[in-house]
Amino acid sequence: MALIVQKYGGTSVGDVNRIKSVAQRVKETYAAGNQVIVVVSARSGVTNELIGRAKSLNPDPDDREMDLLLTVGEQETIALTAMALHALGVPAVSRTGKEAGILTDLAHTRARITSISGGDIKDQLDAGKVVILAGFQGYSPDGQITTLGRGGSDLSAIAISAALNADICQIYTDVDGVYTADPRVVEHASKLSEIAYEEMLELASSGSKVMQNRAVEFAQKFDVVFEVRSSFNNNPGTIVKEEAASMEDVVVSGVALDKNQAKVVVSDLPDHPGTAAELFNALADAGISVDMIVQNIGREGKANMTFTVPRDAINRAEKTVVELFPDEAQGKLFEASDIAKVSVVGVGMRTHTGVAAKLFAALAQAGVNIQLVSTSEIKIAVGIDPKDAEQATRIVHDAFDLGVESS
Amino acid sequence: MALIVQKYGGTSVGDVNRIKSVAQRVKETYAAGNQVIVVVSARSGVTNELIGRAKSLNPDPDDREMDLLLTVGEQETIALTAMALHALGVPAVSRTGKEAGILTDLAHTRARITSISGGDIKDQLDAGKVVILAGFQGYSPDGQITTLGRGGSDLSAIAISAALNADICQIYTDVDGVYTADPRVVEHASKLSEIAYEEMLELASSGSKVMQNRAVEFAQKFDVVFEVRSSFNNNPGTIVKEEAASMEDVVVSGVALDKNQAKVVVSDLPDHPGTAAELFNALADAGISVDMIVQNIGREGKANMTFTVPRDAINRAEKTVVELFPDEAQGKLFEASDIAKVSVVGVGMRTHTGVAAKLFAALAQAGVNIQLVSTSEIKIAVGIDPKDAEQATRIVHDAFDLGVESS
Repeated sequence: MALIVQKYGGTSVGDVNRIKSVAQRVKETYAAGNQVIVVVSARSGVTNELIGRAKSLNPDPDDREMDLLLTVGEQETIALTAMALHALGVPAVSRTGKEAGILTDLAHTRARITSISGGDIKDQLDAGKVVILAGFQGYSPDGQITTLGRGGSDLSAIAISAALNADICQIYTDVDGVYTADPRVVEHASKLSEIAYEEMLELASSGSKVMQNRAVEFAQKFDVVFEVRSSFNNNPGTIVKEEAASMEDVVVSGVALDKNQAKVVVSDLPDHPGTAAELFNALADAGISVDMIVQNIGREGKANMTFTVPRDAINRAEKTVVELFPDEAQGKLFEASDIAKVSVVGVGMRTHTGVAAKLFAALAQAGVNIQLVSTSEIKIAVGIDPKDAEQATRIVHDAFDLGVESS
Repeated sequence: MALIVQKYGGTSVGDVNRIKSVAQRVKETYAAGNQVIVVVSARSGVTNELIGRAKSLNPDPDDREMDLLLTVGEQETIALTAMALHALGVPAVSRTGKEAGILTDLAHTRARITSISGGDIKDQLDAGKVVILAGFQGYSPDGQITTLGRGGSDLSAIAISAALNADICQIYTDVDGVYTADPRVVEHASKLSEIAYEEMLELASSGSKVMQNRAVEFAQKFDVVFEVRSSFNNNPGTIVKEEAASMEDVVVSGVALDKNQAKVVVSDLPDHPGTAAELFNALADAGISVDMIVQNIGREGKANMTFTVPRDAINRAEKTVVELFPDEAQGKLFEASDIAKVSVVGVGMRTHTGVAAKLFAALAQAGVNIQLVSTSEIKIAVGIDPKDAEQATRIVHDAFDLGVESS
């Protein structure tokens, strides 16, 4: 008898018919002799509706009240899902995050899990019941309801899997799994049967938003094997797990495209220690997250620094740079413009050479100009003109033979 | 400094603009130097939507899950109301029923309050905060969320007023107060400035559904003076309180009309002890609530029994009677038809005579036939043909001089 955790996102429980489908799938899993914990999100759209109402009443709503507000979404779906299971004759009981003993820190709206007791979930499972757990929520040491931030339901599922030592955690979503590239961009992209945590993390931070990184990091830390799969069909999904030797046979697992980046170039920086620290401290203080960073030497021994930020932070970034350098001789804003980032990711890069060369050659042959490059142990990312973004993604995908054979 | 409890129903917090109006009114009350507890219902329509979703998943949803589901409505409005107050610069904090220590019995979906600790509400008030309390909800001794049944938010408001010894409890609704008759039926009906608990109870059970009787009974039991008034204007409402000597000067306080009744006549009952008990036990077992009961002697020393039931229970009532009397000589269903009930209510009846005579004379003069009569110490109710219902209400209202002078 296996313990299976199934997490269903907002689209998968979007209306009563979708909830019925979820209940049917849970019933099948339960009837096959498994213990089942079902983690559900709010119905799709509900969280945004609630935020909309809150913001129209108060542009800067209190975090504690916000958490109380947002957790109603999941509280609704756990009750409805339990009712749907009862209608199918499956014994089931719902539990809120607090009832499941998901203890967090005090940081309302972005709380971190500190421990999980599981409440009476183990007892309920042993009594033959399916347990429906509200995702996204926990409680702080002073008894207040907290939430885990965007994508928190994935984290709830991974965390309860770790706490109760589940055999597998299935993340049901509206896509079939993790693909070698976004199928909307690369028509013949293929689904990966398995992928390493680190690849998943790099793909996510490179624009493939299947899951939030926090949940993947948590899974990696506690060695929770999980599967990303669709709630709309029965296709096998993608297994995400610790890196295995066999994975290294594949040099590149996927190509990610992020079109929501902007590039900021600061020129005329004095080339001495501390300049970079000063610049990136100022950006951090302004709450701007910086992704790629490239430094090179410009004219007269002065340095140029290029970095990328989320596109919606570009105005703040420009303002920060201008205010930081009142004397333009000591650094000045040279350029700020939209950029697209194409990344190739694969744990095989650790043991294979020539990936960068192959990438650059493919782009050069297609006439795509590379504006900046950054690398990690298992990723190479290039910043290019947004107008070239989709074509470049397809070219790179082909260059590494990632596509499925067209039949 | 007074402690004021304000309860706002679903229409009063129906959308963000209505919630803003509520916050404005609360701010004025707070700014005048009062301590304020605000009890809110779910936005109008939300509870029915949730029930609709539940029933479409499961025609007979589990009561415990139902309570978890329904309490999200109030949890949303307390958070939104707190945010709206913050936006007006009023310090405010929300509390769920459980946080307010509203302890109930174990009867999910229709729980009775057993005690109220108030949680930290007194401390919050003393710290200068407005407290927003979720109506309709409490928790059972085993820590589960419970709900108080339809109209439960009124009960929450009255109960917290009793527990914290509030100076006044204001029930804000979409009507100006309690009227001498339904203004949609009797155009010149006038608003009562005050009314006794018992009159309020009789009016409610006679069809004037301003509030559920449980809340009024609770107020009477714990001597909570409350005011029914509109959240859409600043008109003074109707004060509901213990009967005062001055109230007896008014013989009749109001006329109530209930059009959702049906009359069942059972004939040929043997006139011996136990027959009535047998009949009404059978109806009770079938879950049918009986209102008026009249018995008289028919032909050959046999008895006729006439009683009224809610209109939607008439088929079940007929079936119950037919099954109870397989031998028609021992009792038979004689007639079942719709009926309207017109009631005159007033504590003054205790000390005044001639009310029934005046009522019957007015109806006779207008040619309205009376089918049955029942009386209590402060009420006389007549059952009449539904087609005469509204005319009869106007005639009775005039006969007792209840109207406002037309100008």
